[in-house]
Amino acid sequence: MRLTQQTNYAVRALMYCAANPDKPSKVADIAATFTMSETHLFKIMKVLVDAGLMKTIRGRNGGITLPRPAEEITVGQVVRATEENFLLAECFDGGKPDCPLVNHCGFNSILHKALDAFLGVLDTCTIADLADNRNNIRHLLHMEPSETTAA
Amino acid sequence: MRLTQQTNYAVRALMYCAANPDKPSKVADIAATFTMSETHLFKIMKVLVDAGLMKTIRGRNGGITLPRPAEEITVGQVVRATEENFLLAECFDGGKPDCPLVNHCGFNSILHKALDAFLGVLDTCTIADLADNRNNIRHLLHMEPSETTAA
Repeated sequence: MRLTQQTNYAVRALMYCAANPDKPSKVADIAATFTMSETHLFKIMKVLVDAGLMKTIRGRNGGITLPRPAEEITVGQVVRATEENFLLAECFDGGKPDCPLVNHCGFNSILHKALDAFLGVLDTCTIADLADNRNNIRHLLHMEPSETTAA
Repeated sequence: MRLTQQTNYAVRALMYCAANPDKPSKVADIAATFTMSETHLFKIMKVLVDAGLMKTIRGRNGGITLPRPAEEITVGQVVRATEENFLLAECFDGGKPDCPLVNHCGFNSILHKALDAFLGVLDTCTIADLADNRNNIRHLLHMEPSETTAA
């Protein structure tokens, strides 16, 4: 059971933006920091922008930022937006016709409950929580010290 | 985020055995019922036997059975045995060296908590729960009505 690489990079990119609230973050900087291609990052950005979890600013001093405080973006929101599906079993969408149990099987139901519990925990954690020691994160990401003093 | 096909088939095979407690179930019957290859089923059986979740009985009237009552086998136990890993993010095993945040990132920690919640829900459900209407399950699986009257 794995989350997609898209989710993994999406969380990292949002942490980067949360650690860098004073100005838009450059796509090239984020891609270089996490050793990912800019093309891949653009694809992930589109998903996050469409979900209202990231904002792009055009122009020479443009880049990407969070559309609202990092305290208001939960990991659960990000994972829901970036995971392409949560088909935990083949029959999870109720459509696997070659299992004779498909419409009479409690496996699907308990997996739904387990998934709800999984996402419920992720809803308790925000991007701000992940980047809570902002100066340490900035140091790790090779950013200059923050202009704002708040951690 | 998906469970492996191995987990899916393992749960189905155990449900089959739970619905058929009077005698060992035939590998060929289970494979045919769920449209899977016997080779694949043997591989899954080995994992379940090694985990103490299935028992094989040799001989002409042999086959596979549950090693203990279906009430004592949880879906959580099965999923833990059959999922090859729970590396929810690339860095989940603490080893992705090209992310500068690897040792300072709360993402890993919250994913662990979410996974615990996921498995915790699956621990509340047994194979007996999934096969609780045994006669209905037997009908769906094209088995003869059960010799025992308990549902």
